Amino acid sequence: MTHDITTQWTGDPRESLRVGEGFRLDAQDPEATPGYGGDKKTGASDLAAAAGILDEYQEKLFAQSRSDATDASVLLVLQAMDTAGKGGIVRHVVGSVDPQGVSLTAFKKPTPEELEHDFLWRIRKAVPEPGIIGVFDRSHYEDVLIGRVRELAPAEEIERRYDEINAFERELTERGVRIVKVMLNISADEQKERLLERLDRPDKHWKFNPGDIDERAMWPAYMDAYQTVFERTSTEHAPWYVVPANRKWYARLAVQALLLSALEEIDPQWPAATFDVEAERRRLLKG
Amino acid sequence: MTHDITTQWTGDPRESLRVGEGFRLDAQDPEATPGYGGDKKTGASDLAAAAGILDEYQEKLFAQSRSDATDASVLLVLQAMDTAGKGGIVRHVVGSVDPQGVSLTAFKKPTPEELEHDFLWRIRKAVPEPGIIGVFDRSHYEDVLIGRVRELAPAEEIERRYDEINAFERELTERGVRIVKVMLNISADEQKERLLERLDRPDKHWKFNPGDIDERAMWPAYMDAYQTVFERTSTEHAPWYVVPANRKWYARLAVQALLLSALEEIDPQWPAATFDVEAERRRLLKG
Repeated sequence: MTHDITTQWTGDPRESLRVGEGFRLDAQDPEATPGYGGDKKTGASDLAAAAGILDEYQEKLFAQSRSDATDASVLLVLQAMDTAGKGGIVRHVVGSVDPQGVSLTAFKKPTPEELEHDFLWRIRKAVPEPGIIGVFDRSHYEDVLIGRVRELAPAEEIERRYDEINAFERELTERGVRIVKVMLNISADEQKERLLERLDRPDKHWKFNPGDIDERAMWPAYMDAYQTVFERTSTEHAPWYVVPANRKWYARLAVQALLLSALEEIDPQWPAATFDVEAERRRLLKG
Repeated sequence: MTHDITTQWTGDPRESLRVGEGFRLDAQDPEATPGYGGDKKTGASDLAAAAGILDEYQEKLFAQSRSDATDASVLLVLQAMDTAGKGGIVRHVVGSVDPQGVSLTAFKKPTPEELEHDFLWRIRKAVPEPGIIGVFDRSHYEDVLIGRVRELAPAEEIERRYDEINAFERELTERGVRIVKVMLNISADEQKERLLERLDRPDKHWKFNPGDIDERAMWPAYMDAYQTVFERTSTEHAPWYVVPANRKWYARLAVQALLLSALEEIDPQWPAATFDVEAERRRLLKG
């Protein structure tokens, strides 16, 4: 982290969370807070302190993209089991960025029209424009997660998709899209607690879907499908980050840090004026 | 205002800002703060205090819309001369709502494809879904504002558009879209100050467009075009509000209050569960 505030980060979350060689999802502790020396309280204040920095980075990126000086954008891909906190990331991390700089797409069960096309068809339409932070709440990875677990496509087709995803993401990267792929990792026990809370609170009933319990019954199959996703699609140009998510405050802080790092790497700059500033000032003062 | 916080509002901004019979734009003072007894400092704290209320209203509206209990949505239409603060409204008022509940569309100069269609074609595609707060940064009103001032269409065509707009907005209202139309009213002098500031600050140069000075030269024609818009399209179902905007803090507070009022009128409620809560709890605890 090179930005100029004091935080409790002791290490670079890109290092500690990145899916590298030999990664095993079942060896990760969803309770852990890797790279962060603080607690819930410092976490909340670190999150608030960096919110404005994230917002300013995005504005600068947008400004620069208007001047044709950059094609860069950021794409945050969020995948997780139900209740893991994707919505909280959107609200509390992405929510600190000017709405004009964000493009959010929630991918639901494909529509009949979408099913008539290749699985990447609907995804391509949602890729962020230069200057924008795009967010995918679920993504093309559903087609190799629920797609695999529920056998929604033949096995050979699922196999082909990993390669298609890698080629697609490489293409995006070459167009200037910096991809940040995040899996929020909660434990099955934590999910049970969160589903129970949704049942206990009438203001949360609308978030509960009996189908969630059916999906939950397939937990081990989902974990296997995620493991395969990581092995097949955590690439140099678009690595996966697995973020322990039993502690919501940590997950938010970590995703914010990953976004900040992506923007730091782009290092956007206010673009130079494309007009004669003094001439425009004279013209304005005359009017 | 019926929500439960103390504010410096002394009157209902819907009353003081609404364009009614005999309204004259040139009789409005862009420096004024109608209905509000506080100052910049209380304004900032009132804005912050109500941010969470706006967010919760939207979440409730969204929840209810998922249960088929309501088709209601809100559509904020923002129109103004350059620099009047539309962007600030989006960032500081709309920005307090969960990004998942907002649909923002910035209407630019129409594309060739858009020009091949009726002027409402691109607008219809951006109408918010139930449960969502839609925001139009510029809108179909451009087609009777710059359209009229720059004579981008024959006079009879412009004439027809007012009626088409009223019919369109009535149709939306009947579908459950609550329309809040806001014109941010700045003075020509204030605009000059703000344009000069953009020229003075390198981090604002990207926001400056030499064409803004050309549009500025047509100020009186624009004011006439707005006056006509108000006379022809401030209807019972979709009234206009003219918000004095020389003081940014007031404009933000007033637009927030108008959105809050729209949501209060809808009065969304957490929907009842559509499943057997106890049966689901047993199923979950068994798993």
